[in-house]
Amino acid sequence: MAQKPSIPKGTRDFSPQEMAKRNYIFDTIKSVFLLYGFQPIETPAMENLSTLMGKYGEEGDKLLFKILNSGDYLKNAPDELLANKDYIHLITKLSEKGLRYDLTVPFARYVVQHRNDLQMPFKRYQIQPVWRADRPQRGRYREFYQCDADVVGSDSLFNEVELISIIDEVFKRFGINIVIKLNNRKVLTGIAEVIGAPEKIVDITVAIDKMDKIGLDNVNAELAEKGLSQQAIDTLRPLLTLSGTNQEKIATLEQLLATSQVGLKGIEEIKFVLDTASSLNLTAKLELDVSLARGLNYYTGTILEVKALDVEMGSICGGGRYDNLTGVFGMDGLSGVGFSFGADRIFDVLNTLNLYPAETSATTRVIFMNFGHNEAVASLRHMRSLRHAGISCELYPESTKMKKQMNYANSKGIPFVAMVGESEMQSNTIAIKNMGTGEQNNYTIEQAIELLK
Amino acid sequence: MAQKPSIPKGTRDFSPQEMAKRNYIFDTIKSVFLLYGFQPIETPAMENLSTLMGKYGEEGDKLLFKILNSGDYLKNAPDELLANKDYIHLITKLSEKGLRYDLTVPFARYVVQHRNDLQMPFKRYQIQPVWRADRPQRGRYREFYQCDADVVGSDSLFNEVELISIIDEVFKRFGINIVIKLNNRKVLTGIAEVIGAPEKIVDITVAIDKMDKIGLDNVNAELAEKGLSQQAIDTLRPLLTLSGTNQEKIATLEQLLATSQVGLKGIEEIKFVLDTASSLNLTAKLELDVSLARGLNYYTGTILEVKALDVEMGSICGGGRYDNLTGVFGMDGLSGVGFSFGADRIFDVLNTLNLYPAETSATTRVIFMNFGHNEAVASLRHMRSLRHAGISCELYPESTKMKKQMNYANSKGIPFVAMVGESEMQSNTIAIKNMGTGEQNNYTIEQAIELLK
Repeated sequence: MAQKPSIPKGTRDFSPQEMAKRNYIFDTIKSVFLLYGFQPIETPAMENLSTLMGKYGEEGDKLLFKILNSGDYLKNAPDELLANKDYIHLITKLSEKGLRYDLTVPFARYVVQHRNDLQMPFKRYQIQPVWRADRPQRGRYREFYQCDADVVGSDSLFNEVELISIIDEVFKRFGINIVIKLNNRKVLTGIAEVIGAPEKIVDITVAIDKMDKIGLDNVNAELAEKGLSQQAIDTLRPLLTLSGTNQEKIATLEQLLATSQVGLKGIEEIKFVLDTASSLNLTAKLELDVSLARGLNYYTGTILEVKALDVEMGSICGGGRYDNLTGVFGMDGLSGVGFSFGADRIFDVLNTLNLYPAETSATTRVIFMNFGHNEAVASLRHMRSLRHAGISCELYPESTKMKKQMNYANSKGIPFVAMVGESEMQSNTIAIKNMGTGEQNNYTIEQAIELLK
Repeated sequence: MAQKPSIPKGTRDFSPQEMAKRNYIFDTIKSVFLLYGFQPIETPAMENLSTLMGKYGEEGDKLLFKILNSGDYLKNAPDELLANKDYIHLITKLSEKGLRYDLTVPFARYVVQHRNDLQMPFKRYQIQPVWRADRPQRGRYREFYQCDADVVGSDSLFNEVELISIIDEVFKRFGINIVIKLNNRKVLTGIAEVIGAPEKIVDITVAIDKMDKIGLDNVNAELAEKGLSQQAIDTLRPLLTLSGTNQEKIATLEQLLATSQVGLKGIEEIKFVLDTASSLNLTAKLELDVSLARGLNYYTGTILEVKALDVEMGSICGGGRYDNLTGVFGMDGLSGVGFSFGADRIFDVLNTLNLYPAETSATTRVIFMNFGHNEAVASLRHMRSLRHAGISCELYPESTKMKKQMNYANSKGIPFVAMVGESEMQSNTIAIKNMGTGEQNNYTIEQAIELLK
């Protein structure tokens, strides 16, 4: 039966051209991770629902893809729930497994499960797809890759400095100019302390973030609306108008947070990271940004985020320090710091700025035209030598019209066409045409290797 | 709430050590695919159930992992089916998507869906995990990787020769001695023709396959039991005792199949492939094996399978030619040939024969001990130079006891330990200890790069 084939919404096929670009991104990131002593792990696509549920909030639980149990998946389903079509309470009766939603929870599970085999500090990277039953839209997919790196089992701030160096190196290799925005959760806690409104910390960071767009008066009005006292708003003013160099911002913060022990500790951490990183002559700009609050409840120290300078785009990388990654799996007191590259957004930035290296469209280096059986066999022998020298090549499999064969070469963007006809067989040479210049000459196999290398 | 974390049965975590070995396998295979002009594609983990169902037989449908629809997945479930707990007919009401079961059906779907963008012949490779709800057992997993390469849109037998060259090259790089067993579906059809029992073709190939183990008399008894006439059994005798060189086997087959047009065509194809491949001085042994019948209903021409010679193990690679890959999706007449490497079995063979190259356990090249803040910052600057030269390195993040730091270096198998203390800072040198020989000297950064490269 003929069907019109398609794929589930929010998912993608990747063509050879797209794969070449994606591999360029992943390979670049991987090689930098390795250079910094991070090692890869992989975890299964499916995790037990007991591992995943409750880790991403109520909304996250809904966005998990659940896998129907094998065989008679209804055998544990209570009749009453079925009769009521109570799909919410039936889920865990029908399904024990789900697709991973991110790489952080599987990593926490991995660390706890393999704790006896791991040498701390454990530095791992992980590049795998994740799945979310989100409403698909431009730039948001139901299957997408995450590229995470984390160090767990060490609370040294040198780890932060190393992560910043990795970010700097990766984007330098991509040719993307970036600013790395830095904050510290302890500073945010300190701010909440000094204005006496710890529960308003989210409103405050949201307000700070809007300063550029709506201005001081509107932000203050919004804060009053959220229930902040006039005194608290006055205290916040220097924070809202925080500007200048990182040093100037730090000086203001030190005054503002002078009475908060945790706030001062946060400033000290920021200073360490900024000072140490800046002694390394990084390419990226480092900017203290007290409005940065990603995943507020999750991070406990450094918070960082990366923006591309030359293109309008959300954050392309982000992360921070957490003090209790594995507590939910019964292993307390493990501190870690990590971050994630947004591969899909980096893909878009490289496309927008046209930054892919020319050789990224990796295709066959040379194709041999097919002039018939004996010529093809002679070509295969030459191809063996070329491949031995690391030169990728292929034979057009049919001895059809030259025009058709040439069309194939063109459409694949193959830069060289090799021809072995009767005269080449006699002289044991190969005619090679440079498809860019149109130049054509006869070469011995040694010369051909030299030319094509 | 503390939970004891685990992963679903039949799935695996891969540690850095296992990842290094797996990457070695995949990278080796990939680099050979590219050398032969094959390009990568990727397809989503989830396919529509309408794409997957009915493609793997009734048993296969059961082994598909189905994904519960998002939101109210019961809203389309008829009350009657629910009341009857009719889990079989309810599946398609609760689930529209499944995890891919292999890479062949998604590839066929891809070719049909993107037919207007593809230049034929289309040569693709694909290395991705697949999922099967099989009963897990030693060596059989519910999540495992397949490594497929196919050429579609060409019926030239040169494609078969190229595939055999790829197999030869891949296993040569692995250092695994192999025999490539070859057969042709047309020969099997011819055999069924000449003995006048086309419907017995499966019984016959099973019987041929048992010759080594149970001998001619028992095989003949079995064939008689299956309903073959004495005349048919007599006609088969030369086939059952087929031995000698490929040439000798072909001579016997040519006599046996003299009256079968399709059989003779199959022999001709085998001869072409064997002759052309053997003119290329391959390392692998090529063996005509008329008992080879993998996926009988699927293949229409060449059938091939690879066995490791020095270890007891099932087939580690297999494939063949099919004439109607895409017919089920409404696109007829597309011939192709392809094969699949069994990555998990290759992993086991390399382990058993201890064939992994020494550098496979890719770890950090050098670790800098941490003697305190200033020393660590000085170390970071040296590390920047080393990384610039492509040397992977890391800093032990805490300035704890040397013993603890050295233990970490040892357990990660890091071959060099670098130390920057006060005297090294003054002389702007690095003390480097070779952990293998115990030798330790002071080096300038240039000398260190030379040493560690």
